[in-house]
Amino acid sequence: MVRNYKIILQYDGSRYDGWQKQGNTEKTVQGKLEQVLERLSGSPVVVHGSGRTDAGVHAHGQTANFHMETELSEKELMQYLNQYLPEDIEVLSLDIVKDRFHSRLNAVEKTYVYHIEMGPKKDVFQRKYIYGLGKELDIERMEEAAVSLMGSHDFKSFCANKKMKKSTVRTLTDISFCQKGTKLTVSYTGDGFLHHMVRILMGTLIEVGLGERKPEEMKEILLKEDRQAAGYTAPAEGLFLERVVYDD
Amino acid sequence: MVRNYKIILQYDGSRYDGWQKQGNTEKTVQGKLEQVLERLSGSPVVVHGSGRTDAGVHAHGQTANFHMETELSEKELMQYLNQYLPEDIEVLSLDIVKDRFHSRLNAVEKTYVYHIEMGPKKDVFQRKYIYGLGKELDIERMEEAAVSLMGSHDFKSFCANKKMKKSTVRTLTDISFCQKGTKLTVSYTGDGFLHHMVRILMGTLIEVGLGERKPEEMKEILLKEDRQAAGYTAPAEGLFLERVVYDD
Repeated sequence: MVRNYKIILQYDGSRYDGWQKQGNTEKTVQGKLEQVLERLSGSPVVVHGSGRTDAGVHAHGQTANFHMETELSEKELMQYLNQYLPEDIEVLSLDIVKDRFHSRLNAVEKTYVYHIEMGPKKDVFQRKYIYGLGKELDIERMEEAAVSLMGSHDFKSFCANKKMKKSTVRTLTDISFCQKGTKLTVSYTGDGFLHHMVRILMGTLIEVGLGERKPEEMKEILLKEDRQAAGYTAPAEGLFLERVVYDD
Repeated sequence: MVRNYKIILQYDGSRYDGWQKQGNTEKTVQGKLEQVLERLSGSPVVVHGSGRTDAGVHAHGQTANFHMETELSEKELMQYLNQYLPEDIEVLSLDIVKDRFHSRLNAVEKTYVYHIEMGPKKDVFQRKYIYGLGKELDIERMEEAAVSLMGSHDFKSFCANKKMKKSTVRTLTDISFCQKGTKLTVSYTGDGFLHHMVRILMGTLIEVGLGERKPEEMKEILLKEDRQAAGYTAPAEGLFLERVVYDD
């Protein structure tokens, strides 16, 4: 009997061309998962992710689903996956869900977390998972700017895809800042995110924190609906897809 | 004026042949430090470590010292080092100390910490800093065995160097266990450690935890003064030199 499996997984995105399979490349997280599942099942298995993560972006809680027929129990299937997946991808949970569950279409909320090192050198043991900015940020200014970004807006100015034909309206329900020593962590929660949206938001907020932009500019940037109006795209290495929330 | 500098540093030992310079190899932590200091000073600088760490062993608090003449302040010298050292080595503090201070000869206590994953898969983001045992351990048995190891003993059975001519007597003041989920952390504190001593102690205690040895065997192993009597050498990747303590 074919069943629908939902998995939550974490990965170190450093050596991958992102989540989404592209042509023949096996250097994607989706590609790695499908490869292992196909070996088990004997026929191709399509894995649907809650969304793409860019090349180099990490995940603590990416969610995906796939339909497959197997005699393995959920526990055995998860063990099989973890045994054959490379050591930079790990399945944290695996459950049988309703047949119509779809990890992307049913997602109602996502949280991304961005890590910044403001000090001169990145922590040796975290160096692949943090952006080494090396400059001090005025976090109060950034918090002030973030207020204008919350709520429902057209985020076209914060979207890397210029030819985006679908709606670019999204709702940000929370942007929060947490400083520990010279490390800054910024969490973004919303109903969905456009291509590069978190990284462009982060780059623009960094420019505010460095004093290069005023917090008040955020409103104007949103209204311009133009990628050129916003700041730079912060690097992928500091970004984690933290969790995906579903209704049921 | 030539000054004596004391540094505390952390490093990811994964890609190094250990602390100690060997011939021409630059793939050692000491070699990297001396290379950067020689470039600054214009003449060779010898860096003395508190002790060697093996190939693949990490450090949160290795301590070293070197004599050098420079016009840079302590803060500038530390910044210079961190700028030119690779990103897997970081100087955490730098101070001018008394001329006769020697990081190895004056060390009175060291702590090593060993990390073990008992679950089936290592955490993706910690995978290079933990030993993937993948088996459950009986920690109470290990704690019982550890009691016999504490205090002053001849640790010849736990020394990889068979031709050791100096005393193999050392004093272990603490072995403590901390479990979090499927992760086990074991700390070893003592006045000094022989070649591979922590890793052989760890391998032997793991054998006790797996039920392959009895806790009571520890006393016999110590008395045999024979490396063959003890257990296997646990892999380097799980081991950290945590800190070195000095009298003043």
